[in-house]
Amino acid sequence: HPQVQGSLLGSVNPDLASERQTASFSVEKLTAWLDGGTEHTRLRRAVVEAIECDPVFSRENQYFESQNERYEAAVRKAVHLQKKMDEMGWTENGPEFKALSGDLAFLLHRIFTRSISMLGSDQQIAKWIPLATQYQLIGSYAQTELGHGTYLQGLETTAVFDITTQEFVLNTPNISAMKWWPGDMGRSATHTVVFAQLYVNGKCYGLHPFIVQIRSLQDHSLCPGITAGDIGPKMNFEHIDNGYLMLQNVRVPRENMLSKFCEVQPDGTYVRRGSQKINYFTMTTVRISLILDEVVIPLMKACTIAIRYSVVRRQSKLKPGEQEAKILDYQTQQEKLLPQLAAAYAFYFISDYLQELFDRGYREIQRKNFDMLPELHAFSSGFKAMVTQYSTSAVEICLRACGGHGYSLLSGLPSLYTKIVASCIYEGENTILFLQTARFLIKCFMAASTGQPVPPSVTYLAAVTPEKCPAKNKLDFLSPDIYTEAYQHMAARLINSTAAKLQDLVQSGVKKHDAWNQCTVQLAQAAKAHCHYITVKNFAETVEKLETQPGIQKIMKHLCDLFALHGIFSNAGVFLHDGYISGAQMDMVTASYLDLLAVIRKDAVPLVDAFDFTDKTLNSALGSYDGQVYQRLYEWAQKSPTNKQISPAYERYLKPLLHKTLSKL
Amino acid sequence: HPQVQGSLLGSVNPDLASERQTASFSVEKLTAWLDGGTEHTRLRRAVVEAIECDPVFSRENQYFESQNERYEAAVRKAVHLQKKMDEMGWTENGPEFKALSGDLAFLLHRIFTRSISMLGSDQQIAKWIPLATQYQLIGSYAQTELGHGTYLQGLETTAVFDITTQEFVLNTPNISAMKWWPGDMGRSATHTVVFAQLYVNGKCYGLHPFIVQIRSLQDHSLCPGITAGDIGPKMNFEHIDNGYLMLQNVRVPRENMLSKFCEVQPDGTYVRRGSQKINYFTMTTVRISLILDEVVIPLMKACTIAIRYSVVRRQSKLKPGEQEAKILDYQTQQEKLLPQLAAAYAFYFISDYLQELFDRGYREIQRKNFDMLPELHAFSSGFKAMVTQYSTSAVEICLRACGGHGYSLLSGLPSLYTKIVASCIYEGENTILFLQTARFLIKCFMAASTGQPVPPSVTYLAAVTPEKCPAKNKLDFLSPDIYTEAYQHMAARLINSTAAKLQDLVQSGVKKHDAWNQCTVQLAQAAKAHCHYITVKNFAETVEKLETQPGIQKIMKHLCDLFALHGIFSNAGVFLHDGYISGAQMDMVTASYLDLLAVIRKDAVPLVDAFDFTDKTLNSALGSYDGQVYQRLYEWAQKSPTNKQISPAYERYLKPLLHKTLSKL
Repeated sequence: HPQVQGSLLGSVNPDLASERQTASFSVEKLTAWLDGGTEHTRLRRAVVEAIECDPVFSRENQYFESQNERYEAAVRKAVHLQKKMDEMGWTENGPEFKALSGDLAFLLHRIFTRSISMLGSDQQIAKWIPLATQYQLIGSYAQTELGHGTYLQGLETTAVFDITTQEFVLNTPNISAMKWWPGDMGRSATHTVVFAQLYVNGKCYGLHPFIVQIRSLQDHSLCPGITAGDIGPKMNFEHIDNGYLMLQNVRVPRENMLSKFCEVQPDGTYVRRGSQKINYFTMTTVRISLILDEVVIPLMKACTIAIRYSVVRRQSKLKPGEQEAKILDYQTQQEKLLPQLAAAYAFYFISDYLQELFDRGYREIQRKNFDMLPELHAFSSGFKAMVTQYSTSAVEICLRACGGHGYSLLSGLPSLYTKIVASCIYEGENTILFLQTARFLIKCFMAASTGQPVPPSVTYLAAVTPEKCPAKNKLDFLSPDIYTEAYQHMAARLINSTAAKLQDLVQSGVKKHDAWNQCTVQLAQAAKAHCHYITVKNFAETVEKLETQPGIQKIMKHLCDLFALHGIFSNAGVFLHDGYISGAQMDMVTASYLDLLAVIRKDAVPLVDAFDFTDKTLNSALGSYDGQVYQRLYEWAQKSPTNKQISPAYERYLKPLLHKTLSKL
Repeated sequence: HPQVQGSLLGSVNPDLASERQTASFSVEKLTAWLDGGTEHTRLRRAVVEAIECDPVFSRENQYFESQNERYEAAVRKAVHLQKKMDEMGWTENGPEFKALSGDLAFLLHRIFTRSISMLGSDQQIAKWIPLATQYQLIGSYAQTELGHGTYLQGLETTAVFDITTQEFVLNTPNISAMKWWPGDMGRSATHTVVFAQLYVNGKCYGLHPFIVQIRSLQDHSLCPGITAGDIGPKMNFEHIDNGYLMLQNVRVPRENMLSKFCEVQPDGTYVRRGSQKINYFTMTTVRISLILDEVVIPLMKACTIAIRYSVVRRQSKLKPGEQEAKILDYQTQQEKLLPQLAAAYAFYFISDYLQELFDRGYREIQRKNFDMLPELHAFSSGFKAMVTQYSTSAVEICLRACGGHGYSLLSGLPSLYTKIVASCIYEGENTILFLQTARFLIKCFMAASTGQPVPPSVTYLAAVTPEKCPAKNKLDFLSPDIYTEAYQHMAARLINSTAAKLQDLVQSGVKKHDAWNQCTVQLAQAAKAHCHYITVKNFAETVEKLETQPGIQKIMKHLCDLFALHGIFSNAGVFLHDGYISGAQMDMVTASYLDLLAVIRKDAVPLVDAFDFTDKTLNSALGSYDGQVYQRLYEWAQKSPTNKQISPAYERYLKPLLHKTLSKL
């Protein structure tokens, strides 16, 4: 069995190789453009290589590890990375964190550090930050409680000021108030920032952050009054020790309340200074940065794996008498994967757009101009929700499109899915986020209708647009003006009609909060439509700016068209509803959409190659550059611990039964 | 901390208890009706109790177990169940398999046994079946290969008849021909049925089944020429040893080819007798039975967990100044969960409908009348695809609707999801199945258009229906006639228009197979629409028959309306496309749909209570009958192995760093 036994790894599968010979553009140029220049590509590759050459960072056995083993590996890597950063001169926000994404401990430690930097006084910063940055203490960030998540005002943990000892006394008043979920807290942290309701002289001053030591630096045992541990297995994030924490009369000195903006003075006087708004800006920033790191990059990986596999896998025949066909040559497989590929590009560009918007906003904030905050908050909320929801569904489609092999952990797809699905929940549950965006849009719509100024991104709400889409044939739907206007019209209509329903309800005597609740399904839909519109518009504008690189521009234009038409095809109802697009025009959309699939099919592999993931980064038996799918599945399966021992089940349960048979056969 | 420390388990959470006091119907009566009578309920409960009282079947530590541990537990339970069946007089197809669903080994052993019973000669049955039924050998069923799944003709394994020794010589000609995925094969099986291309005198006779011994009965070592092992970790099914198998000149006697329908005689003459069609009927049966066991029941469990949790969880305020609201009181949460609940009922009824259809078909087949086979095949394919796809998405919605706690394995939801998603892939990949149904529908449509007879379920394809929906206000959309006709119109239109596109393409000179491929996205959509229509129609008919039980009929009518209107609301485009439903009517649909959510909300908990799952069956910290969600999460988390040892990571990586800090604080 030479074909079975000899390893083919390294020699590129000919079916995959042939896909690379017909690219309509230069993959290297596209990679450089996506990176923001060849110099950035060079630097990124250097960091990735340095990390992948270092055996401490190996992910080779990841799919076989238990929760305990993954935790240990994550701690090892985090500590080693710190050393490596010192050696290599890497910075805190450099690409090395991304190259290791998902495998590091101490992400919450970073939030601990950030919260002290932002909310702590100069003395607090001077005391804690140097220790934290060298892991001479391990911090966590204890906000969420067992019974309370997004609604922060509902948090129950208390901190009562004791004037006699100049201490705060922290308590968990009942079980639902237990801190639950904070990362790094279950097994690692020695300290944590605890959010608690502050009481001074019997009066509640609301939520404040306190630094609390929870484990001994000497022997890591729990401090007096502390109950803490790991919350157990999750769908993913096994490498993170998400934890629980109960506090019983835990005393911390007055100096441990983070006091840049609020302070309790020795005599019990409560002093507040400055604005709290900046707190929201931290969460806003986190939401924006997670879009790229935790959502778009995983989606790009899933597309790479599924598309490469789909040109190696052959199944059934397209034409009688021919060889079995590559599954990517079936229209249904194209329709599964290529829109997800287009979405990966669309979201990569919208992430850039949001980052720019935020940089601009941050510059204004530094000048003490807080005008952009509502818009930034609305954008970060809506786009976090839209992109995570869309991408989660996209990764699931990629997984299922790989059939049985996609379901094996060795494909890399299950872990991408189980990780990305969490992004729909953390940092704000998506429905709540959509409703926050909707509240902003309704306000802007009301303001715009009465002629008041609104931010540029929402002026379209009051714009006068034609009542019918002017497209006359299927080619017209390849015009960005045509489809962008259709999206604009649809988003404006949904916001407009929901605002009208809201007003009608209130005018008919329904109380304002009930009316709001009765409109929330439609409000969430309207907010999503707004984000979809902006994403299409931004994609079209990105393509337009590519005029100096015609080869790349052409293929990006196809992807932009596909993203836009896929959205119309899949959400036909909202475009047909008021007749803006007619049934006959929807048939044109469908025809153009299906035509595009066949066009982009030809460049599918080069388009994922351009994402430039290394095999080690993908960690997938199906998605490697050489396409040796079957060989790799076979070699990796043999490393599974299930193949390294005879199960005790044989001796205990099977042997006695099987031995009865010996005499009979 | 009395509230924190004392266990509340057993005393029902008051928020959940209050939901049960206002049920509009008798839960016990609904359960009995679903079971098919009180006597069936009594029997089912007795079996479940017998199993749950037996510690061997405990699932207490399931969420903490490794792949090896889950495999061992599954073998232990399978062997013990056999003993228990003998003791209790339970039968092979009784409810006890369902009560243990998901945790048993040797499911493929059952397929091994079934295939010998159906395809083996009387002598083969007499030899193998008695051994198999007592686990005196462990069988598997080796069909799928590393490179070949649904397209059976492409399988590459060979079996060459050697006339001199009267043996078949089996070989795996290259790596993609390795058998891959068969359950029970990686570690347990001693024998397997191998599907291979039969060669006699150099001529290929196509796929045939051979019994092959792969492991020694003496010491379980691999037999000569056999390479086999476990394929490693998967998204779920860790308890099953899905395996790989390579054959190198493995010889089996002539008698080991299953020979009820085909035989190679000693002189090499190949004889075929009877019909092969019955083979497809086995797969058809499996698809029908998996709908209930592997899809609808898991969906019911997910609904139970998510709905109970949603009345215990409180988050944010609906009205200023009030207590935080139960999350199920938010319209958006209702809109997530209640349509899934309605779907669980809809699919429970369609599963009944399919079972009846198949019983009827089987009776005909026994009378040698094979006329119903195409319809049965089309129905089993389409409904398997539709129900698995819909339910997978529904379980995911339930998981995400529980926020962070849904993401914990302890909620029970991640394992329901990772299991149900496999049902979209196994026993026929869904897209391929939809296309098989579509092929049947197109044929029937063509036949019906030319006046030829078609099966009763598809006569609607040629029926003349009104061009516009006659509904005048939102209440009209609560009429089953109105919405059933809308579905019928929509399904017929999609099939009709796709058939027209297909004809146009062929008439314009596109080759038939290319034309088919260019229509597959729309063909799959049409097949799905057909199944959706039949499901709605069957739900409405089920409700109609309930006239003797008005209390249950009323709530089932609400659920039927909700299922139907949710489908129109979510697929608005296909109803609006040709103007059958106008934009104004779609607003009525939306209004009625949203009104129904508030109505069904009141009975949501009784409606899941009626599914009658025990706490042990649900195995969920969020979904137990008593609603002590937080207490249970806390108690279960403490059992996690992550809390039972100090991680070596502390000694190795953290201690050296932390000790540096001691002097500084």
